[in-house]
Amino acid sequence: MTEPDTALIAIDWGTTSARAYRMAAGGTVCDMRSAPLGVGSLEDGRFASALDTLLDDWRHAITPRIACGMIGSRQGWVEAPYVECPADLALLGRSLTATPGGELVIVPGARCVDEAGVPDVMRGEETQLVGSIRRDEGQVLAVLPGTHSKWAIVDSGRLVEFATFMTGELYAVLLAHSILGRMAGARTGDATAAFDRGVQRGSDGAGLAHAIFGARTLALASELAADEVGDWLSGVLIGDEIRAARRWAREHRIDGASVRVIGEGSLVARYVRALERLGIYADPGPAAAAAAGLYRIAEHAGLLDP
Amino acid sequence: MTEPDTALIAIDWGTTSARAYRMAAGGTVCDMRSAPLGVGSLEDGRFASALDTLLDDWRHAITPRIACGMIGSRQGWVEAPYVECPADLALLGRSLTATPGGELVIVPGARCVDEAGVPDVMRGEETQLVGSIRRDEGQVLAVLPGTHSKWAIVDSGRLVEFATFMTGELYAVLLAHSILGRMAGARTGDATAAFDRGVQRGSDGAGLAHAIFGARTLALASELAADEVGDWLSGVLIGDEIRAARRWAREHRIDGASVRVIGEGSLVARYVRALERLGIYADPGPAAAAAAGLYRIAEHAGLLDP
Repeated sequence: MTEPDTALIAIDWGTTSARAYRMAAGGTVCDMRSAPLGVGSLEDGRFASALDTLLDDWRHAITPRIACGMIGSRQGWVEAPYVECPADLALLGRSLTATPGGELVIVPGARCVDEAGVPDVMRGEETQLVGSIRRDEGQVLAVLPGTHSKWAIVDSGRLVEFATFMTGELYAVLLAHSILGRMAGARTGDATAAFDRGVQRGSDGAGLAHAIFGARTLALASELAADEVGDWLSGVLIGDEIRAARRWAREHRIDGASVRVIGEGSLVARYVRALERLGIYADPGPAAAAAAGLYRIAEHAGLLDP
Repeated sequence: MTEPDTALIAIDWGTTSARAYRMAAGGTVCDMRSAPLGVGSLEDGRFASALDTLLDDWRHAITPRIACGMIGSRQGWVEAPYVECPADLALLGRSLTATPGGELVIVPGARCVDEAGVPDVMRGEETQLVGSIRRDEGQVLAVLPGTHSKWAIVDSGRLVEFATFMTGELYAVLLAHSILGRMAGARTGDATAAFDRGVQRGSDGAGLAHAIFGARTLALASELAADEVGDWLSGVLIGDEIRAARRWAREHRIDGASVRVIGEGSLVARYVRALERLGIYADPGPAAAAAAGLYRIAEHAGLLDP
């Protein structure tokens, strides 16, 4: 049974998994459920039943439901158009897209176009930004680590521009499919020192395609143990990302001495450590940023009981 | 039957294939044979029979045999030690390693250590450099495109330093195993314009992990056709490599306005085009550089009849 205090069901529905939050009036998270029912594993026509599976007994609640993430992509339930940057994050609630059967509403993704005319897109991260940055904070440089990590510039509640780095996916494909993976053994001990050395290497700007080859040459020279190769490589990739993102931020006249780090878990801890090693203040965002953002967007959209 | 004018059998023996040259006195290539008998496909103990297969009737020739490449690696026939940079290329012939049965001698690889203490290695490319750059040329910046492309600084016949870029392998694993490959279709037309746009994108220094994501966003925005994704990505990777390599060369006080391009085939043509698009003079090296280099090394080693 759903508790009577439920004001909103908020769902962060990504490519590999879906996570539902039962939220009370005011935005408190009462409960959370997750399932490996990501958009990437669902065929068209299977979304409604996946939602029922995810929500279980919450599905009976007479409560608004709102979702963000890849569920609004072309491969998702229904395509939710992108809002164009610069975009006022408080206005995302004006552009919600309902599923054909009215099961839930979906937050738009965000899109920007850089000086060279190349677009970039996000789905889900715009909602985490809403849940992590207050309008009165002025200018914030934020990173959302992930398979495709996002760096974003938010100014007085407006998403000015952002940039995607495929760091997590590069790490996974290099370890699984390149010659570097053949050098890597299972992790057996604390490889923090190897990670730190990798961060330093990646941040020196020598070029990623060159820097990563060090995983092979250092291992050949017995200067990197097999069980350190993965952490060293992770450090190089994250170090190079931070270097490039700071350069990008400087081009937008932001010094990047402080970075809001949004998300949870071990990957986020790696970014915090890497930033600190490079002398950058890692400013932690709140927990459950997607839930908080979905609540605020629902509030702005007038979905919640007053 | 082997022709009576054979002075040397020279073998460029790499990871995926082996190529043998029958050479006359003076260094002319009379004939060439190749086979998919690369070191990566051969188990220990199978090298002698692979050599017989490759040479076929040439194996009866009473002629010195010399090889370069991964055949001298730890995974090869016998490990040929590295020479340390800076290394006089004319002296490589003093450090040949014979196989246990005396079937052939193997040229050493080269090793250097950069300012940060990270080593780099090459096997085979040192021989191509010998075959491509004359001692009296002074300072030369060279690139040897490949799965792992090498940039080298040669000064008056000395290999000063070099740097490996995993560009070719990155291209292959990204197309085969990343989300970018899912955007790519088979090539159906001339995608030169897409390649050129990619080169420009890669050369702007925004960070490789960010730049490659454009293959997805440009395709989503219908600004890149499926059959152009591969060429655009190839351009980004090569453009970023050239940018990083020029930076590296400048750190060694070389302006990089002219680059010797060593090798043959379509990949080399891509590098020539990319260099020219970026305003750099692409100075073509000679054909069959490995054969020419092996001949010179054999000559310096006193292996040839006077």
